[in-house]
Amino acid sequence: MAPNPNDPSKKTWLPVPEKSDFPIQNIPFGVFLTRDDIITIGTRIGDFAIDLGALHQLGYFKDIPLTDDIFLQDTLNDFISDGKKTWHLVRNRISTIFDINNFELQNNEDHIKIVLFAMEEIEMQVPVQIGDYTDFYSSREHATNVGSMFRDPENALLPNWSHLPVGYHGRSSSIVTSGTPIRRPMGQTLPKGAEKPIFGPSNLVDFELEMAFITTDANALGEPIPIDEAEDYIFGMVLFNDWSARDIQKWEYIPLGPFLSKNFASSMSPWIITMAALEPFRVESPKQDPQPLPYLQQQHGNHSFDIKLEVEITPEHSEATTVSRSNFKYMYWTMAQQLAHHTINGCKVNSGDLMGSGTISGPTPDSYGSMLELSWQGTKPVKLKNGQQRKFIEDNDTVTLKGYCEKNGMRIGFGEVSSKLLPVFQPKPKK
Amino acid sequence: MAPNPNDPSKKTWLPVPEKSDFPIQNIPFGVFLTRDDIITIGTRIGDFAIDLGALHQLGYFKDIPLTDDIFLQDTLNDFISDGKKTWHLVRNRISTIFDINNFELQNNEDHIKIVLFAMEEIEMQVPVQIGDYTDFYSSREHATNVGSMFRDPENALLPNWSHLPVGYHGRSSSIVTSGTPIRRPMGQTLPKGAEKPIFGPSNLVDFELEMAFITTDANALGEPIPIDEAEDYIFGMVLFNDWSARDIQKWEYIPLGPFLSKNFASSMSPWIITMAALEPFRVESPKQDPQPLPYLQQQHGNHSFDIKLEVEITPEHSEATTVSRSNFKYMYWTMAQQLAHHTINGCKVNSGDLMGSGTISGPTPDSYGSMLELSWQGTKPVKLKNGQQRKFIEDNDTVTLKGYCEKNGMRIGFGEVSSKLLPVFQPKPKK
Repeated sequence: MAPNPNDPSKKTWLPVPEKSDFPIQNIPFGVFLTRDDIITIGTRIGDFAIDLGALHQLGYFKDIPLTDDIFLQDTLNDFISDGKKTWHLVRNRISTIFDINNFELQNNEDHIKIVLFAMEEIEMQVPVQIGDYTDFYSSREHATNVGSMFRDPENALLPNWSHLPVGYHGRSSSIVTSGTPIRRPMGQTLPKGAEKPIFGPSNLVDFELEMAFITTDANALGEPIPIDEAEDYIFGMVLFNDWSARDIQKWEYIPLGPFLSKNFASSMSPWIITMAALEPFRVESPKQDPQPLPYLQQQHGNHSFDIKLEVEITPEHSEATTVSRSNFKYMYWTMAQQLAHHTINGCKVNSGDLMGSGTISGPTPDSYGSMLELSWQGTKPVKLKNGQQRKFIEDNDTVTLKGYCEKNGMRIGFGEVSSKLLPVFQPKPKK
Repeated sequence: MAPNPNDPSKKTWLPVPEKSDFPIQNIPFGVFLTRDDIITIGTRIGDFAIDLGALHQLGYFKDIPLTDDIFLQDTLNDFISDGKKTWHLVRNRISTIFDINNFELQNNEDHIKIVLFAMEEIEMQVPVQIGDYTDFYSSREHATNVGSMFRDPENALLPNWSHLPVGYHGRSSSIVTSGTPIRRPMGQTLPKGAEKPIFGPSNLVDFELEMAFITTDANALGEPIPIDEAEDYIFGMVLFNDWSARDIQKWEYIPLGPFLSKNFASSMSPWIITMAALEPFRVESPKQDPQPLPYLQQQHGNHSFDIKLEVEITPEHSEATTVSRSNFKYMYWTMAQQLAHHTINGCKVNSGDLMGSGTISGPTPDSYGSMLELSWQGTKPVKLKNGQQRKFIEDNDTVTLKGYCEKNGMRIGFGEVSSKLLPVFQPKPKK
């Protein structure tokens, strides 16, 4: 029997700093540009990035059914298409190669030089070509908070919310990875009491603390994915900051939903943490009342994950302040329910599709997942360590999301997604 | 100076049936599977499909800066990325090759055998890899009709509608081409007067008569496209049927917009008609009142196109009935305004992105672009030639959209997009 890659006692021959998000039990997947300007698929242990394309060429994945160039690609889509069985074979093999008791690569200095990179030497890329990006709205606390502010505190949750995981389509083209700065958007807003909109920079730029999952090819057009099978089609998860412009949103979103208020940028963390690595951190999801319709009912068990989440704001040339601490386990609707709902009408889901959770707010005000909620529409400014305060995000602020699981002394983390908000774009004067 | 490919007196050595949508002045672009199971990019004259990959290999595009494999691809994305100047060079060259006075290919039987296919021999494909699909809502008549039915006849048009081209994101993965049957979707609906939703087949499946335009790479993330430049980034147009399930839509769409009611299928016509071919059919767009904000203001001129549109319903084993006659020129917002608005916040637009007009309804009841409007929510059933009537689309009905321009004896058409609605999907019993 193959050794268990999730075994907390497992050790690697690579140095792993204490409290690292990337012990040998993690084995995330990502895409990076090497010091030689080559794009490759890789994994990470401690502070080393590992070139899986090179490892494969050197024969370390022999006997696993993989095409020769499966890791020599600029996206993970084809590897994800290979399916769950292959993901597990590759993860187990990586776990074996870097096991402290395995000397094959450990003692091969030539090979080590080829496959290992220090994190500073590489540049992480968006790891998948995202065909379609869907964003859900599955935190009851977030939906209640927004409904209270935008509509009516007495009827904050709309009638459909507790019967289905509300979702909508977002913009794939504007998804960037950690480190890519984004621009404050321009747009139309309706000033309070005005009859006509004005044009200018958004004044209410916000983050949204989300996670997202990435799917494999799941179905043919027209064929739903049964809820019992839905988890088999989820490859892994990332941190996701769904940048939002609240003033643009308020003016545009009725009746077809948010559009320009969201599609100027979303930021994802670069390493995809596999569902296999998250397995030890399963927890129950919130009890659902009313009971969902049969196509959304899951068998008893732990369908959520205990993932601790944090948001930091770092003003330019200043220190970071943690402004929110939340947890993925607060999500009312599970990922399996989201995927089953998404396909119940036959909508096709492909490898590399990304599905966001929606803002993850917890029950207490310090666990809210957006400035809109943390500052309660600007009425309760958030204090920063440097003495400043924030109602929303200001130019040159950096917003960083972090996430990790911890249990029995084992920590599996997501790293971070960090993005700086630049001032509005200034077009070059015409010559 | 190069001859004008739009010259109505121009003739080709290929036979072109009278009233064909594809005279030598059209020169659309598409992707097809040949009789030898090879995917290639091609164009069409009369009832012949022309293999551009083969023509290029045979040297007919010499002196035009094209990569060797530009037409040997399964999508048009890379060719569209080459930009407007290249599109024109290629279109002009095709026009020259098939000109009745040009004998180079005309007299080369060996080459003709390689590059020409009868339409029956080939299978048209979705012509672009659609990175992102956006659907607008830009027909004033349609928005007014829907607002009257779903909300309030006194305030049918929402306050933002006349200030910006309302749009939202759709699902790229579910876009198919003409001939692909689609499935009646299952989903949640709220019966009249009920407090809880039920699950079952949608009973109100509808077509939406739309057109869509396809873009080239237009901007970097964060940089708006000025309205004066927007038309340069539009490659061409197609017919587009944005299938909708009205009962699912009504229950799910507040507050984030339509989702499962739309993403089960959209059908596009396979030949992209270039903006160059549509140039002779420019007309003024409707006067806009109130005046839009400056970023949406266009210089005086003809910013719309006179494209006649028709919808046919064909019940199984029966004859077709034309149920609507509309025109693209009714669109209140122009394509340039849509694209300028879409990017005013810096949203990135890529080659192959598809942007739908929204349902195109005209001013009279026989020009409405959906069954929802034609049957006025089912209160005025539409009579078919076979004696049946329709409130919405029934199982095994085929819906066909057609479109063409006509002026001074010249006709440039889109062909058609035709799709049969199959009954709901029946999962195989588990063994």
